[in-house]
Parts: sequence; structure tokens; C-alpha cells
Amino acid sequence: MRATLFALEQTIRQRRSADPSTSYVAKLTARGRGKIAQKVGEEAVETVIAAMAGDRDGVVGESADLLFHLLLLLADLDISLDSVCDELERREGVSGIAEKASRPAD
Amino acid sequence: MRATLFALEQTIRQRRSADPSTSYVAKLTARGRGKIAQKVGEEAVETVIAAMAGDRDGVVGESADLLFHLLLLLADLDISLDSVCDELERREGVSGIAEKASRPAD
Amino acid sequence: MRATLFALEQTIRQRRSADPSTSYVAKLTARGRGKIAQKVGEEAVETVIAAMAGDRDGVVGESADLLFHLLLLLADLDISLDSVCDELERREGVSGIAEKASRPAD
Amino acid sequence: MRATLFALEQTIRQRRSADPSTSYVAKLTARGRGKIAQKVGEEAVETVIAAMAGDRDGVVGESADLLFHLLLLLADLDISLDSVCDELERREGVSGIAEKASRPAD
Repeated sequence: MRATLFALEQTIRQRRSADPSTSYVAKLTARGRGKIAQKVGEEAVETVIAAMAGDRDGVVGESADLLFHLLLLLADLDISLDSVCDELERREGVSGIAEKASRPAD
Repeated sequence: MRATLFALEQTIRQRRSADPSTSYVAKLTARGRGKIAQKVGEEAVETVIAAMAGDRDGVVGESADLLFHLLLLLADLDISLDSVCDELERREGVSGIAEKASRPAD
Repeated sequence: MRATLFALEQTIRQRRSADPSTSYVAKLTARGRGKIAQKVGEEAVETVIAAMAGDRDGVVGESADLLFHLLLLLADLDISLDSVCDELERREGVSGIAEKASRPAD
Repeated sequence: MRATLFALEQTIRQRRSADPSTSYVAKLTARGRGKIAQKVGEEAVETVIAAMAGDRDGVVGESADLLFHLLLLLADLDISLDSVCDELERREGVSGIAEKASRPAD
């Protein structure tokens, strides 16, 4: 277990108010939620394509990009990674993967 | 900092070989990488739409779904969450968000 | 050249006010723009995955689904397919694919 | 009814073998199917975001981009727009929107 994502979450939150000319986080934040959301969608598409191409290095890089921009989007909505983890644990704990299993697979 | 995602990664890896009639992980795995990748793309789209609608509860739920299926896709490619965290730390440590800053924001 | 897409556009516009219990168009329209947009995103993801898998029949089917739901989304915003064609011709005619060529390819 | 999309399809097919230094179509084609598919996914995401933002001009522009890149992807797979129209008419004619209606709306 590692603190990477939670440390990154803190870094992102701090940099939101940094100088947009030197901080990517501040720059993208200044462009608005639509642009942050767009990056989440695009990085997901790139992850999907790398996976379908069997490009494992590509999947590592695109997944990192996807997680980075997802954290940026959560920060923009003032949602903590903790609350997303709560949701994942709630599903696992209460109805768990069973809840998932009850859904049709497509 | 919490172990949620790493614990979920272990659970997912264990359930890949479970009975597809009772395990969502096993069922989706059996349908092939394309179906897992499809779910990653779809949950990203739902996250984007919830964010644009300002639906914070929706973003929490869809982000949880996105992370869950991303872990499932990584497992299908035998890529550890650790290696994605390595990549995030490498960027942060070496060229950091600076690397990001050097990219055009769109 | 065929009238298919323009005929389909008309059919979709007529069915928006049909009975949601018998018309898919009316049902999805009643669920709101977010659900229509979600389908556009999902069908695009499925088109991408079929293309990456080299599944030509799949690409035909998913492209049809994508076009169908794009027409539904345009109708929901009261945008005509004609105005999208105008935009495509404007680009081709004035600055053309040259406009495209001036963009970075990624 | 207009010939725009079919004329564009022809233009795209001709430009695939043009000089990549002057033709966007040739350049993107040279980068491979993954890059073309990526653009389809990205333009769909941008269409979704513009729709959710109620940005009608944005939807016109992004829909044009989406259709352009979908035609490019179809050309890369040697699939004609005609065959996608056949599929749309087959659904409409035989089981039609009724086929659609029989699916769960999500």
C-alpha cells in the first residue's frame, strides 16, 4: 500500500491556486471544469486504446494520466479521494461485489 | 491515506478465477478485454457527464465505478497499481508536474 | 448518395413526442440530455473498441448506433444535421482540410 | 437532403495516400488506426461536454469533428458510409426503432 494518490491529491489541491503560467494544474483549472472533464474522457479513451493494442507500457502511462486528471476533476468539485474510497468500501462491505454481480454485465 | 484501492486490487485478482455465475469480476473477465475496456470508457463518460451536471453524488459513484473497472483492466493486463503509482511518482519526482506544464493544455 | 440520415433525423424528431412506453426515442428523450449524451459517448467507445479489435461488422453496427444517438442528441438541442453539414462544408470550402492540417495531429 | 457526408467520404479516401506533410488525412492515417480511433473517442467526449454545457455552437463544431473522424476511421477499415446507412435502414425497416425499444434504456 502506498500514499501516492493521496499525496498527489494534496499536491493538486495546493497547485490549483498557483500561477497558471508555471503550473499545469492551475492552468487547466483556470480553463474550467469542461476542460478538466474533457481530459478525463480523453485519457480514458487512450487507456482503452492502449489496452486493446496490448501496449502494456502505454496502459501504465495512460492510466497514470487518467488518475491524475480524475484527481484534478474531483478537486474541482471539492470531492475527496477519501469519499470515493468510502463508496468503494460501502459497496464491498454491504452488498459488495454482489451488488455488481446483480447488474447485467453489459 | 487508505489501503482501499490496494485491497480492492487483491480482491479483484482473486475473483478473476471465481465462478462467473456468482462473481461480477469473473463474469466480466470471461467476456474478454474488450468488454472490460468498454466499461472503463463508459464509466469515464458517466463521470464526465455527472461532473458537467454538477451532480456531486453522481461523480462519487461514477468515479468509484471508474476506479473499480480500471483496476479490473489493469489486472487483465497483469499490471499492478504499484507500477502506475511508480509512473505517477516518476513524473512528480523527476520532471514532475513540470513535465505536465510543458505540454499544451489542450 | 442517400437520404438515410436526413430521413432518420425526421423520424427521430417526430418520435420525441411519442409514447415513451413504445418509442425508444421518446423514452431516452424523457430521461434527459445527460442520458442521451451518455449513449453518444458509450457508442463512440464501442466503435473505438470494435475498430481496435479489427471487428468490421462490429464497427458497422456501433457506427450506426453512434450516428443514431448523435442525431438524437442534435434533435434534443434543436440542431439540424444541415447545420453540421454547413460546418463541414465551411471547413472544406474556406480553409478546408488545410484548417485541419494546421492543427497538431494529436 | 445533401451530399456533404458522401462527398467528404470520397475526399478522405483520396487524401489517405496524399503527402502527410500537407494533408491532415494522410498524416493521421500514417500514425495508425489507434490514433484515428483516439480522435473519434476524443471528439465524442467533446461533443458530450458541449451538449452538457448547453453550448450549441460547440456541439455543431464538435459534431462536425466527430463525423469527420468517424469517416476517416471507416475509410481506414475500408467500410463505406453506405454500409452503415444499410445497417440503419435495416434496423428501421425490419424491426426498426422497435428493436431499439426492446433494449433497456440504460
